[in-house]
Amino acid sequence: MILGIVQTDPVFGDIIGNQIQVERLLGNHKADLWVLPELALTGYETRGRAESLELSEELPHGPSAKWLHQLCRDRNCHMIMGLIEREGDKVYNGSVFIGPDGMVGRYRKVHLFDKEVTRFDPGDIPFNVYDIGVARVGIMICFDWRFPEVMRTLALRGGQIVAHPSNLVLPYCQAAMVTRCFENNVFAATANRIGTEERDDRSVSFTGRSVIVGTQGELLASAAVDATDVLLVDIDPTRADIKTINPYNDTFGTRRAEFYEI
Amino acid sequence: MILGIVQTDPVFGDIIGNQIQVERLLGNHKADLWVLPELALTGYETRGRAESLELSEELPHGPSAKWLHQLCRDRNCHMIMGLIEREGDKVYNGSVFIGPDGMVGRYRKVHLFDKEVTRFDPGDIPFNVYDIGVARVGIMICFDWRFPEVMRTLALRGGQIVAHPSNLVLPYCQAAMVTRCFENNVFAATANRIGTEERDDRSVSFTGRSVIVGTQGELLASAAVDATDVLLVDIDPTRADIKTINPYNDTFGTRRAEFYEI
Repeated sequence: MILGIVQTDPVFGDIIGNQIQVERLLGNHKADLWVLPELALTGYETRGRAESLELSEELPHGPSAKWLHQLCRDRNCHMIMGLIEREGDKVYNGSVFIGPDGMVGRYRKVHLFDKEVTRFDPGDIPFNVYDIGVARVGIMICFDWRFPEVMRTLALRGGQIVAHPSNLVLPYCQAAMVTRCFENNVFAATANRIGTEERDDRSVSFTGRSVIVGTQGELLASAAVDATDVLLVDIDPTRADIKTINPYNDTFGTRRAEFYEI
Repeated sequence: MILGIVQTDPVFGDIIGNQIQVERLLGNHKADLWVLPELALTGYETRGRAESLELSEELPHGPSAKWLHQLCRDRNCHMIMGLIEREGDKVYNGSVFIGPDGMVGRYRKVHLFDKEVTRFDPGDIPFNVYDIGVARVGIMICFDWRFPEVMRTLALRGGQIVAHPSNLVLPYCQAAMVTRCFENNVFAATANRIGTEERDDRSVSFTGRSVIVGTQGELLASAAVDATDVLLVDIDPTRADIKTINPYNDTFGTRRAEFYEI
């Protein structure tokens, strides 16, 4: 299957412009599964909870999800994209997972980073793995990478690919993803954005260099640091089912959970 | 405090020769805590359980531990070294932690690598953290690094420094230790060996490049790939008590264990 990433340079609040940018980057590229950045259409830094709510939508029928569904139908593919999800009076830094037939799943960021704590409610649904036929896919968002428990949980639940919509501001993640994939024998696609967001007196810059990493920690593809980009890698997701390290060790079988503190 | 590593080139079964090598490398260097490799005096590859038993000793009064205790008294320091520990009819790939006043603690490798499974019993004591006044120190051995749960457990139990006696044969560990230290905000000292062991028809080569890594994932020191070496770094172990990431996040406080599968 082809696993793809779109690395974008969104403009805060310009939903339509950002959609056009994604469509332009997708061009005629073909992938079975596309991963887009965190908060891909809204931009990152809302002024607070009220603005998060303004830019939020309900799933599965909100406007961004509808637009994404149309893309999935037109291109016969699956896509995972970060967006602001609202449910009742809650608002989440979320991701939606959509295919040609509609919504497959969703995720709500469990580990909110920095001031996101003031802008969103913490994720309240489990780290689920979704089987889309060509692969079993789990989702985490950005800062979740820092907690090894996240990819471990997704791998233990059968994930072959970890889709990782991101708006990275710290430089460590891309190197850490090598360790994460190696220690779990899974694929991962970290879809990052580039650019700087200026909001009021604050300025936040993002690190680009989206990465696709293989089950042995191989860097399969990496994007530009400061330009929009598209990554495409042909992978065999079943390689993630091979947890054998050697005749005596297995990534999961050798674990001794009775000694681990959680 | 000064944290030191001795990277050795032991000869299988030549206990006395290997002791002399360690003493020569220590020379007049001073450290508060020294970390030596896994199975530092015996060599790595015993032919099986019987030979492991032959080269084993009981703690705290076995010959290697006595020798190490004398070194700690003479140099007024603490040392952690890998050795083969026997207790009753069990034999472990172990490590002993000794100071001027005698044994502080021990560890028995929980995740045995490859054919070690046929040579040793699996570790059966918890990942303990030992307070030696200048620092709180936890121990893991070699392959334990591959399981993120190990350093997480040692960090959650208050470890400031993870001593990591190793005989590494795979190249990934040294890079992974950067992630491990960063994700837990702890120091680590991976004391590796160099050289090749030829036993019967088998040959095993070790990767050298021992590393000392800081609480933000900084590579503080790294040793030669193919030569014996000594690393010395002046560290402040209390830096490992700072788990603050930003005003809203904390390495441990932001964890949401209710979502983690163990």
